[in-house]
Amino acid sequence: MSDDPASAGGRLLIWCPDRPGIVAGVSAFLAARGANITASDQHSSDPRDGRFFMRMEFQLAGLERAADEFERAFDDEVAGLFGMRWRIAYPGRRKRVGILVSHEGHCVLELLTRWRRGELDANIVGVIGNHRVLEDDVLAQGVEFAHVPTPRGGREEAERELLGHLAGRCDLVVLARYMQILTGDFLDRLGVPVINIHHSFLPAFPGAAPYRQAHERGVKIIGATAHYVTEELDDGPIIEQDVARVSHRATVADFVRTGADIERAVLARAVRWHLEDRILVHERKTVVFAGE
Amino acid sequence: MSDDPASAGGRLLIWCPDRPGIVAGVSAFLAARGANITASDQHSSDPRDGRFFMRMEFQLAGLERAADEFERAFDDEVAGLFGMRWRIAYPGRRKRVGILVSHEGHCVLELLTRWRRGELDANIVGVIGNHRVLEDDVLAQGVEFAHVPTPRGGREEAERELLGHLAGRCDLVVLARYMQILTGDFLDRLGVPVINIHHSFLPAFPGAAPYRQAHERGVKIIGATAHYVTEELDDGPIIEQDVARVSHRATVADFVRTGADIERAVLARAVRWHLEDRILVHERKTVVFAGE
Amino acid sequence: MSDDPASAGGRLLIWCPDRPGIVAGVSAFLAARGANITASDQHSSDPRDGRFFMRMEFQLAGLERAADEFERAFDDEVAGLFGMRWRIAYPGRRKRVGILVSHEGHCVLELLTRWRRGELDANIVGVIGNHRVLEDDVLAQGVEFAHVPTPRGGREEAERELLGHLAGRCDLVVLARYMQILTGDFLDRLGVPVINIHHSFLPAFPGAAPYRQAHERGVKIIGATAHYVTEELDDGPIIEQDVARVSHRATVADFVRTGADIERAVLARAVRWHLEDRILVHERKTVVFAGE
Amino acid sequence: MSDDPASAGGRLLIWCPDRPGIVAGVSAFLAARGANITASDQHSSDPRDGRFFMRMEFQLAGLERAADEFERAFDDEVAGLFGMRWRIAYPGRRKRVGILVSHEGHCVLELLTRWRRGELDANIVGVIGNHRVLEDDVLAQGVEFAHVPTPRGGREEAERELLGHLAGRCDLVVLARYMQILTGDFLDRLGVPVINIHHSFLPAFPGAAPYRQAHERGVKIIGATAHYVTEELDDGPIIEQDVARVSHRATVADFVRTGADIERAVLARAVRWHLEDRILVHERKTVVFAGE
Repeated sequence: MSDDPASAGGRLLIWCPDRPGIVAGVSAFLAARGANITASDQHSSDPRDGRFFMRMEFQLAGLERAADEFERAFDDEVAGLFGMRWRIAYPGRRKRVGILVSHEGHCVLELLTRWRRGELDANIVGVIGNHRVLEDDVLAQGVEFAHVPTPRGGREEAERELLGHLAGRCDLVVLARYMQILTGDFLDRLGVPVINIHHSFLPAFPGAAPYRQAHERGVKIIGATAHYVTEELDDGPIIEQDVARVSHRATVADFVRTGADIERAVLARAVRWHLEDRILVHERKTVVFAGE
Repeated sequence: MSDDPASAGGRLLIWCPDRPGIVAGVSAFLAARGANITASDQHSSDPRDGRFFMRMEFQLAGLERAADEFERAFDDEVAGLFGMRWRIAYPGRRKRVGILVSHEGHCVLELLTRWRRGELDANIVGVIGNHRVLEDDVLAQGVEFAHVPTPRGGREEAERELLGHLAGRCDLVVLARYMQILTGDFLDRLGVPVINIHHSFLPAFPGAAPYRQAHERGVKIIGATAHYVTEELDDGPIIEQDVARVSHRATVADFVRTGADIERAVLARAVRWHLEDRILVHERKTVVFAGE
Repeated sequence: MSDDPASAGGRLLIWCPDRPGIVAGVSAFLAARGANITASDQHSSDPRDGRFFMRMEFQLAGLERAADEFERAFDDEVAGLFGMRWRIAYPGRRKRVGILVSHEGHCVLELLTRWRRGELDANIVGVIGNHRVLEDDVLAQGVEFAHVPTPRGGREEAERELLGHLAGRCDLVVLARYMQILTGDFLDRLGVPVINIHHSFLPAFPGAAPYRQAHERGVKIIGATAHYVTEELDDGPIIEQDVARVSHRATVADFVRTGADIERAVLARAVRWHLEDRILVHERKTVVFAGE
Repeated sequence: MSDDPASAGGRLLIWCPDRPGIVAGVSAFLAARGANITASDQHSSDPRDGRFFMRMEFQLAGLERAADEFERAFDDEVAGLFGMRWRIAYPGRRKRVGILVSHEGHCVLELLTRWRRGELDANIVGVIGNHRVLEDDVLAQGVEFAHVPTPRGGREEAERELLGHLAGRCDLVVLARYMQILTGDFLDRLGVPVINIHHSFLPAFPGAAPYRQAHERGVKIIGATAHYVTEELDDGPIIEQDVARVSHRATVADFVRTGADIERAVLARAVRWHLEDRILVHERKTVVFAGE
């Protein structure tokens, strides 16, 4: 929490069955308390019997100190009427982020570089690697590094140790090319969103060495997908995707390098949007109220 | 006007100085009349002392028949309080579109093809060319063609003739590679928005044969810009831009062909967004509430 | 065949095991006959024991009249030494193209529009549809249309009828959203390359209504792939791919419209590159010596 | 120089008036010495009376040791016949690179990060800043930093000091957001290529605060251009350009952040292509034989 003007604002996210009067109800509530809506975006999956999603940024002096009362009043006076699910985020309360890595540094270093430039409004609580190869690079950015190896047969213990580092200490965990599968049990106990990044091809290439497979198949486009992690491997709600063109001249090494460039850009956007409370998840799908 | 369900909807566009309560005021007005807001997008140029822009789509049974009363009530009960400029568009009232061309057909044929596929919700009142070369292609699409030549020294008469075809008969005029400059006097008398398309380069190449100049300069990106026409040539509010990559292998002819592909795509998007009432102009700038 | 200067040129395509001296051998052969190499592109899949691919455009007065002798000499003096597979195409001999369609016109009309603008150097021998819905649009472009229905259980007869129209009369067949599967037997008897276009998603959505599936999954990128047809459905060598971004705002209809725009652009590029003899196929992969 | 297999290769670049026999002459020379051409790309600005450009990569055991004799022979036996300008680069001889910066770190840190990942095959001899703000970040990458301030009226002395650091010690100088104009005299004395990066807009916005101007104008595309530096400010031969889309939602700060992302990507590609000897300059234009 802080006293600067930014802390005078809130970000309200709601989702509920669509019906007339939602926007009027919410905005009347905010207006009655003197809040100024500075950004608003809404989405209806279908005007008839669809789902309604909305994100509002507003300014209201003294909001954080009165947060509990404000939230209780919103729940009583508005949310109940419309059967809303909702949350309010306070930019003044920075999200705490833990990052898991293996041996490839392009994603974690992109995140740390942007964070140091002030593009990611978060507290980075630390980086945990199942290898030590990135330790020096992480420390050079002024961020703590912990080594939690994942020896064959040691997943249970590794997840226990990870939870010791992360549970209750993070609001978000980012898998920045962490090459281990996390169990559903781990995700449950962690209890906060987890964002992952992986390469994407048209068509898809399951199995080992996907860049080699894609090269042998002569694809002309390679891409990456950032998504929330669910128990279904690589199949959680998609947050962001991007692609780049490649030609027959590109070697497998060129594919890998170009793929790395896309991965780090896509992951950075996904993490930024999450930190700015721009993403709502409904069923297997995201609504991303992107700002730019 | 029509009786189909689509005609039960309206698109409200407003712009005014930003201050608390605008969204609440507008949405309460709509809710009180039983309207269901099916899409809403807003933009504030600056939360402090900025301009506020909003577009709402709503459904309301019987709206079109009661349009006059509805608009009067909105003006009295809402717009006045906030110093709003506003308009309501009725999807059931198709916009009438006139198209001006010279001798290049790629833009006009793209528009007519999309229109026939149902992508552009408009009545095409006709195509006017200062050459006859596109006449057969236009007629083959089932659209009228008029020839209004622009001989040297004959601009005044040509503009008079164009006004005879267009004034009072169009809600929008599209310059689909019309290679004549229109006077401010003509634009005033026409009295409806005019959309133009032109090539764009980094850097810009004023003067004749811009594709040849860009080729000689070895640009790696070529583009196109669609904009509203003002008296300042090629300098009105930008609606849409896009680009494509080119390499040293591309000839001037490749530049021209690629440029034509971008021009027709960009112009088609700009016209569609205008027809869907997604564009607000403020000073020299557009706010485009794009749907996809 | 023609007498214009363009007919004085040839396009030589070769592919063979890579080893020193290939370029020297080919270019010495051409130089000895007075040919001027005006474009050359080569690719080696791997400098050690890889495959070598090359495309050369050259000018040589009187080439077409002397084509038989020229090809025999090349085979004797060069190709044999290097174990080459090769072919020479003569721009003066326009490729004959047949197009198959069903009920969606965006791809075929894009091809015909570009063809009429002179961008596709081919003779369009006709369009065949298993529906009649596109007949008028095709005829309006001055191209013949034949109706070959494919009733349930009538595939064998339909393919026989298609072969009557196409076999021996085409150098290329384009499936411009032709929604029927062609048998391996048909492809064998046809004996010329067949290019197909289909949508592409990350991840892929097999089965019916892929756009609806992709929409439900919330993908952020949609694309299209043009490929040569083999017996493996949608799995032949990829010629070209492209994509466009979509957001949660896009409806299924927006997905379909955007997808159609990508499909027609990708198919048009693939067909143009084929007509310009820019594509070599090796195993399941293409080498595309794109010109721009 | 090294003994690894990579050092057994050369990259030959030539440019000359186009005429028959160039490729044959060059490739026969290479074949006669047992070289294997592993990549070849050529470009003719015009088959009739145009300029011819070619880049060949070849493998030849013992090349570097015999470089002087090899180059003399090439000059005598081939280059003279065709009036060629040419050079041979040896991948085993790493280019020495100096980087100039001011206070923005996104470009220099991108270069150093890629360099440490092995994507840029160069020796970074050091970073020189006219401010000290990036000193720690540069040192953390294991690269030397020197401070050469540019006080008002002190340009002459500053350039003298820069030359002391760079002249004779670099094969390339990169301006990674160096916000000082370099004199023609400085460029002459430096005597090696200089690559610069700057933002690019459609249309262009000369003068101060271009991002603010572009934002006020409502552009939909922002970009960056990397180019060789000549005395004409921001007007040397273009190496690479790229762009990103922005909407009305983007603030000036979003423009700046997005612009920075494009700048660092474009500069990194331009520097990599230069280091790989993929760029030929002719008059005000580049031919870029990009590898991927």
